[in-house]
Amino acid sequence: MSNPTKPQPAVQTAITPTREQHYAEWYQQVVRAADLAENSPVRGCMVIKPWGYQLWENMQRVLDRMFKDTGHKNAYFPLFIPLSFLEKEAEHVEGFAKECAVVTHHRLQAGTKPDGRPGLVPSGELDEPLVVRPTSETIIGASFAKWVQSYRDLPLLINQWANVVRWEMRTRLFLRTAEFLWQEGHTAHATEAEAREETMKMLDVYADFAENWMAMPVIKGRKTDGERFPGAVDTFSIEAMMQDRKALQAGTSHFLGQNFAKASEIKFLDQNGTLQHAWTTSWGVSTRLVGGLIMTHADDDGLMVPPRLAPTHVVILPITPKPETAAAVNEACEKLAKRLREIAYAGRTVEVEVDRRDLRGGDKMWQWVKKGAPLRVEIGPRDLEQNAVSVCRRDRGTKERTAMSADALVAGVVALLEEIQQGMLAKAKAHREANTRVIDEPAEFRAFFTPNKQESENSPTEIHGGFAMSRFAMDAKDEAKLKDDLGVTVRCIPIEGPDDPGPCILSGKPATRRVVFAKAY
Amino acid sequence: MSNPTKPQPAVQTAITPTREQHYAEWYQQVVRAADLAENSPVRGCMVIKPWGYQLWENMQRVLDRMFKDTGHKNAYFPLFIPLSFLEKEAEHVEGFAKECAVVTHHRLQAGTKPDGRPGLVPSGELDEPLVVRPTSETIIGASFAKWVQSYRDLPLLINQWANVVRWEMRTRLFLRTAEFLWQEGHTAHATEAEAREETMKMLDVYADFAENWMAMPVIKGRKTDGERFPGAVDTFSIEAMMQDRKALQAGTSHFLGQNFAKASEIKFLDQNGTLQHAWTTSWGVSTRLVGGLIMTHADDDGLMVPPRLAPTHVVILPITPKPETAAAVNEACEKLAKRLREIAYAGRTVEVEVDRRDLRGGDKMWQWVKKGAPLRVEIGPRDLEQNAVSVCRRDRGTKERTAMSADALVAGVVALLEEIQQGMLAKAKAHREANTRVIDEPAEFRAFFTPNKQESENSPTEIHGGFAMSRFAMDAKDEAKLKDDLGVTVRCIPIEGPDDPGPCILSGKPATRRVVFAKAY
Repeated sequence: MSNPTKPQPAVQTAITPTREQHYAEWYQQVVRAADLAENSPVRGCMVIKPWGYQLWENMQRVLDRMFKDTGHKNAYFPLFIPLSFLEKEAEHVEGFAKECAVVTHHRLQAGTKPDGRPGLVPSGELDEPLVVRPTSETIIGASFAKWVQSYRDLPLLINQWANVVRWEMRTRLFLRTAEFLWQEGHTAHATEAEAREETMKMLDVYADFAENWMAMPVIKGRKTDGERFPGAVDTFSIEAMMQDRKALQAGTSHFLGQNFAKASEIKFLDQNGTLQHAWTTSWGVSTRLVGGLIMTHADDDGLMVPPRLAPTHVVILPITPKPETAAAVNEACEKLAKRLREIAYAGRTVEVEVDRRDLRGGDKMWQWVKKGAPLRVEIGPRDLEQNAVSVCRRDRGTKERTAMSADALVAGVVALLEEIQQGMLAKAKAHREANTRVIDEPAEFRAFFTPNKQESENSPTEIHGGFAMSRFAMDAKDEAKLKDDLGVTVRCIPIEGPDDPGPCILSGKPATRRVVFAKAY
Repeated sequence: MSNPTKPQPAVQTAITPTREQHYAEWYQQVVRAADLAENSPVRGCMVIKPWGYQLWENMQRVLDRMFKDTGHKNAYFPLFIPLSFLEKEAEHVEGFAKECAVVTHHRLQAGTKPDGRPGLVPSGELDEPLVVRPTSETIIGASFAKWVQSYRDLPLLINQWANVVRWEMRTRLFLRTAEFLWQEGHTAHATEAEAREETMKMLDVYADFAENWMAMPVIKGRKTDGERFPGAVDTFSIEAMMQDRKALQAGTSHFLGQNFAKASEIKFLDQNGTLQHAWTTSWGVSTRLVGGLIMTHADDDGLMVPPRLAPTHVVILPITPKPETAAAVNEACEKLAKRLREIAYAGRTVEVEVDRRDLRGGDKMWQWVKKGAPLRVEIGPRDLEQNAVSVCRRDRGTKERTAMSADALVAGVVALLEEIQQGMLAKAKAHREANTRVIDEPAEFRAFFTPNKQESENSPTEIHGGFAMSRFAMDAKDEAKLKDDLGVTVRCIPIEGPDDPGPCILSGKPATRRVVFAKAY
């Protein structure tokens, strides 16, 4: 944290404000500077720009492969859900389907608008309103009920890539938007054990993806009753720590028991000829992951993209100060690009962009810093003479550069990218460890989550707290009170934590386990 | 055509009715038998089942690569379009935005429904209704207007993969549904010439894809004024002939001139510092292509999938009549699968499924025939003894099978798949040629498009006509009258046709070119 009594050296950063100065605004500025997304004229809906969308596509590609390798198949279900489907699912509705987009008409025609002006007005009122899917359990359940007749039809392992809409009042690009892109897995099984196994398997897939592709360490855990998905028997999540030390729920996997199967009448004849309800699961991650990636890795110069998901791994910048050497420089750049593009990396090939745009070199360089491409390579006339290229790593600040031969870069590019990838994961892990504290004293717990007064007077920073590993007796009333008092919630009950009995941090009542307490997005 | 006076031999087919008996119903039955899609509880919206969705995914993968290779980047824009955007675009609205899904409320809450029962009712009326995008020119135009400032920002080459909704009254799976999946390319250019070049380039990409991946020959051409996209200066399409000899418009590419740029205020400073409107294009293909693929290649035994787009290229069916040889048979099947999966084919590897489900062999075989997998391979105990496998091609009827060694199959599988692919294209081309006629006599023209009376009395077939290559003087009134009279339209003015002056087939007025007349989907 900055110490307001000591003047800070004026470090030039690409992003203003810095993380310390104002974390929330810094986030918006990184999204803008990296050209990832922007707000649209439609309230709460974002436009995902090419660099942001490529990140999402790369995530999709890897996740889709993981889903297929675990036996799932993609399918597509309607965008609209009849109102009656939501009514059937009473608990579901209570939970989150209240704020949603409702289609009531199927025609626009010329007429008089409410303010008296002529224009287009809705007509053709629907007999039954349709809801734009906030999630698809009910509509997919209707199909599953038709597809499942016998134990031979199980397990049914389906995934859908889709857009969903939840009418959020306060939105933030990627983290919380009215419309977002996601995948939702929906599976049906013959036994509880199988469905529980599926739930945990997909949680593991998410954790694997977060750590090994996004370089974002996560804690796998179970949600408390208060944070559970409505209708689920058990909800599990992966929770990551952002740089402001708040938690981000990055993916969820729900064991739905027979609740949804009963609501949707998903029944099968078992091997003994007995009619039974299936056991179902659902699990999802969304474009929120892009927000998590930004808040895990970006710095005060902009985004930093983990190489395994980078849209572009290597940007080559030709330095052409004199017309007479420009052709040779450009040729050397294209030749290097061609060689690099033949190298396999992380399930695809090294992606290279030669940026020959007519822009000042400094502007061009800073654009790529802000976008977070892992490696920048400059080639100028002097480099050509010395048979060298100049390599800059995004994870090493903007001053450091290394001269090496093109051959050395080609030979070492995969190792270099992996070193950056692993370094990003290690740094994120270290940050989480440094800001995770085992707390047994209520006073310490309260202090941990209370912003330093001086700090909050001198800067609008939101950075405080972290993960408190404290015991909890699982009383929902205590949890609700904590949320009101400090804005802190139980993020999860870690799966991998051992039993560790002692008094509950909130009530002093006997508790068996430590849980993760944190403020959260 | 069947001759009703001569009794037909009773050929057993997997699909009832056959194409001849009732083409439209045959189509529905193929979709069902191949497990491609089904109707949903939401009027006009389909559920795309895994086999159908995999076809679409494979199409997406190839098209996406083609778009990226021609310099386009993907992005994502809001599902909803404010009503005012459509009002701005008056001609646009006139054209097709009338029947669309209108969101008027953003909340559901407990209340009394119109029929007096308690339930959920829409509340939270929006100040401005939102339309679920029927296409995205207006909402993407709003972004382009922000992104484009200078000639340096051009060309802007964007593609979106998305769902769109048009409230269709009469729907048919894949061919016409209220919600469908598509891609829409939207580009902006500094000059008319560049935008026209882009329009034709993407038409060529579509034609290349249709012919070389779908094995569906197409005619590239320009639409007449009456069939043009509202707001476009020129609309081009690819038109394919289905087995009932009707045309299917399989993709469109629009040169929009400066019309949309003016409506959306997409302006840029050119190299002379003059503010100009950009020139834009848009182009799209949709899940309708899956319908076109079915109607081009399926037969009376079900679907036939072109190998280059097949979800599964080779299905291996273990024949295990005796428990004592089952293990050896299954092992041989898995070993063959592993070898085949290492072979590169059409930008991926050979996709193999070993079907070990507990089903009768005949049922299993017929399921794969109906799904249209290009190759079925059976391995039984006797094959093992003879070191052979039994190979059945989907394009050769269900009786023909060839014994070969596993080595020979591995060595020859790519050639075999390509032979099937090319054979399917050749067959589709031959069908089109056999049913395309150069017609100069109005009486012949009328007869060509009038069902044989006896035929139509004896069977509900819709098969008649074809493509008539006849001269047209481009009078919209004559075209409209033709549509009313015979249900025939000008599908396109072929790009590759030479000038061939003579009298118009409809009016006798002088005409310069032949066009494609046909009935159409």
